[in-house]
Amino acid sequence: MDKYRHILLATDFSEHAERAAERAKELADLYQARLTLLHAVEDLVLYDEFYDPVIPDRLEVDQERLNRGHEMLVKLAERIGAKEAHSEARLGYPKAVILEYAEEQKVDLIVVGSHGHRGLARLLGSTARALVNDAPCDVLRVRLPG
Amino acid sequence: MDKYRHILLATDFSEHAERAAERAKELADLYQARLTLLHAVEDLVLYDEFYDPVIPDRLEVDQERLNRGHEMLVKLAERIGAKEAHSEARLGYPKAVILEYAEEQKVDLIVVGSHGHRGLARLLGSTARALVNDAPCDVLRVRLPG
Repeated sequence: MDKYRHILLATDFSEHAERAAERAKELADLYQARLTLLHAVEDLVLYDEFYDPVIPDRLEVDQERLNRGHEMLVKLAERIGAKEAHSEARLGYPKAVILEYAEEQKVDLIVVGSHGHRGLARLLGSTARALVNDAPCDVLRVRLPG
Repeated sequence: MDKYRHILLATDFSEHAERAAERAKELADLYQARLTLLHAVEDLVLYDEFYDPVIPDRLEVDQERLNRGHEMLVKLAERIGAKEAHSEARLGYPKAVILEYAEEQKVDLIVVGSHGHRGLARLLGSTARALVNDAPCDVLRVRLPG
């Protein structure tokens, strides 16, 4: 069985994602694997006062949000002591972005944080569940204690 | 963040579970963690020709199945080079058995194999999904390639 060579941390910058990031870094060190931090910037559709979608500035807004996401990834990489990690922000629905990246970049382990799954948190955890169902590789769900 | 100290492999002895076992052993080595192999022997209710449940020999049959499960765990431990691992077979519904054991024995990582999730395999993968939802600790879902 191959050891992990490319570990992907999928993050939404929440509290549980921070813990997942630390675990991903720890595993990357143990396996001497490549580490990538990935954040999906979800598509926004903005409407004007007549509920018409606002098109003209769309690309500019998206680019700004991608830049901001990338900056946050770089800061996260610094916090977990993984300056050498590759940071990537992509536009799209989180599950699709993560699966596409994993396939394209031959990721063999996806690390993802997750809330407990009671009440509202159950809804929020849907990306982790979707990945466990559909990812082409191993998936580690990191749980925030308590 | 604490390193993993007690890794639990939950196995049903299928092909994907074998791969999960190898990964669990590898991680236990890397983390110098305790490794436990756990198998849930599902409750059987046997019926006679009048569809009355057969009660008298129930305990004996259960004990036989538990013994058989334990033997298979010991053989699995040998195959993956983990003779030092603790093997435990328990009677009950897999998800409940695994969660109970994890809580009781302060497991911090559950490793579980899983099919891909298309068609029939989607049904078979339900234990992995249930664990990802409800486990009190981290969960690694190991995927059989292809």
